[in-house]
Parts: sequence; C-alpha cells; structure tokens
Amino acid sequence: MDNPKTIRFFDDIAIGDKLLGQACSVEQDEMIAYAKRNDPMPFHADPEQAAATIFGGLIASGGFALTLWYRSAYDVGQEIALLAGIDWNMRIPRPIRPGDVVTMHGIFVDKQPTSKPDRGVIAAETALVNQHGDPTLECNVKWLVATRAYSAASTGEA
Amino acid sequence: MDNPKTIRFFDDIAIGDKLLGQACSVEQDEMIAYAKRNDPMPFHADPEQAAATIFGGLIASGGFALTLWYRSAYDVGQEIALLAGIDWNMRIPRPIRPGDVVTMHGIFVDKQPTSKPDRGVIAAETALVNQHGDPTLECNVKWLVATRAYSAASTGEA
Repeated sequence: MDNPKTIRFFDDIAIGDKLLGQACSVEQDEMIAYAKRNDPMPFHADPEQAAATIFGGLIASGGFALTLWYRSAYDVGQEIALLAGIDWNMRIPRPIRPGDVVTMHGIFVDKQPTSKPDRGVIAAETALVNQHGDPTLECNVKWLVATRAYSAASTGEA
Repeated sequence: MDNPKTIRFFDDIAIGDKLLGQACSVEQDEMIAYAKRNDPMPFHADPEQAAATIFGGLIASGGFALTLWYRSAYDVGQEIALLAGIDWNMRIPRPIRPGDVVTMHGIFVDKQPTSKPDRGVIAAETALVNQHGDPTLECNVKWLVATRAYSAASTGEA
C-alpha cells in the first residue's frame, strides 16, 4: 500500500466489479518439491506413479493450487484496501497440471458494512482459469476491507 | 498406500472418529520465503514492518496456513482410502506465528454414499491447533473415499 492514490476502499467497490490476476506458469519441479514437503501422494509427487493413476499424470495438491491462487491474486489484493481474509471456500472441478498457465479471475458478488464504520466485508467469487479457459481451483472468498473513514483516521485526511 | 492392511475404507469410518496429525514447527525463514514468493503483504513477509501493524508481528499467509495443514494431515490421509479432496472451507480465527507448533485435529462429522458403489463422501471438521491449545486455521473438508468394493475390484480380493 505504498501509493494510497491507487487503492480502492470499501466505499469504492461495486458489486459486479471484476478482478484479473497475473498469469502464473505451473512448473513441474516446483509442484513436485511442494508435494514432497507437504502432500506426497503419488499423483502429486511422482510423475511415473502418477501416470498409472486415474489422473493419468501429475496434478497439483490443493495446497499448491491455493498457493498459485495467492500468487496470481497478489497484485489485485494490492489494489484494494485489504485488511484481512475472513474465509475461503475452495473446490477443484478440474486439476492443475505441470505446464498449465493459470490466472485468477473474479467478480465481487456482495458487500456488507460491519458494526465498525472503518471496515466492511466484500465477497468475491474467483477461479484460477487455465490456458484453455477452464476453471481449476474455484475459491469464494470474503475479505475485510477498510473504508475511507479508516483511511481518514489513519492519515488525518478526509 | 503401500500397506493396504493399515488402510480404512469408507465402510470402516464412523462419524465421531477422531483424526490427529503430525506436530509441525513453524519456521520464520520458511514463512517469509513463502510470503515473498506468493503473498508478500508486509505482515506476512517483513518482520520489521509486521511489528508496526495491528498484528504486532509476522503472521502466516492463508496459503502457508493451508500448506501446514497438508503437512500435518498427510499421515492421517495415508490411513484412509482417500481418492480425492472435494471441497475445503477455511477460516483463520487466530493467526499462525513463527515459532508456533501446529497439529491438525479433526473429527468425522458425516458420511454419505454416492451413486457409485465403490466410493463415498466423508466430511471432517478439522483445525490446526497451536501449542496453546487454540485453533488457528479451521478447515472443514469433504473427501472422496474408496469403499471395500473399490478395493475388491482393484485387487481381486474381497
């Protein structure tokens, strides 16, 4: 949040506004390293064993899929006055595979004030869309976002 | 699944059965490296800047929290005939900090057959509990789990 002029506050966000993250290439070596450390199921960690499973090859762990979601979404998060994540509801309708290029697409679907005037809750439906245009990880998220009142209290400006 | 004798199938799992993962130490260097690559908010990636935020120090990214959940839960996953994750509903009631030791605790809360006799859906409520006994990441998960019929079809054994 180095440049507040570019940041959108709760007040500025409209339901229906869209989000577009950075394209991220999915590297097999990184996928395997992540799996070996955190989730070493054969279809996540071993290309040969993965080829013999119903998946027909390596697929990303759910943890690695969310890692890619954060990586793709980061710049978007920088453009809003994000205070914290509240909850994340994930599903993976199709797997992420080595060599894929995934990009977070999203849309704001709800905004609600809270009991505190300096913050509100924004809901977004998002997905990591692959190079074929198909959703992989879907993540519906709620974020706590600062209002302009929060900004004014922090900086002394209106 | 190298030793099928130790694996519990859908048929063997009872609502109310508990799960206990491995204790995982949370290393500051790894937390920072993850954040710099995936989610470089100051309170995830920079100890000095984090100290000046409302969090009072570094806290784990949601993506790193789920990474630790997978790491802690892996052995548990090996003990059931897990075919795939279906969905994951996450919230983080209190942050994970460097130096914490987190352990996945869970309980099976539902089991439902599917239209296919070889697989069912198991729901579990889980949390990464820290060294103070408090929940950090909470993750309610549904897993697709093989039945004994699946095993019999795969191995030719009853």
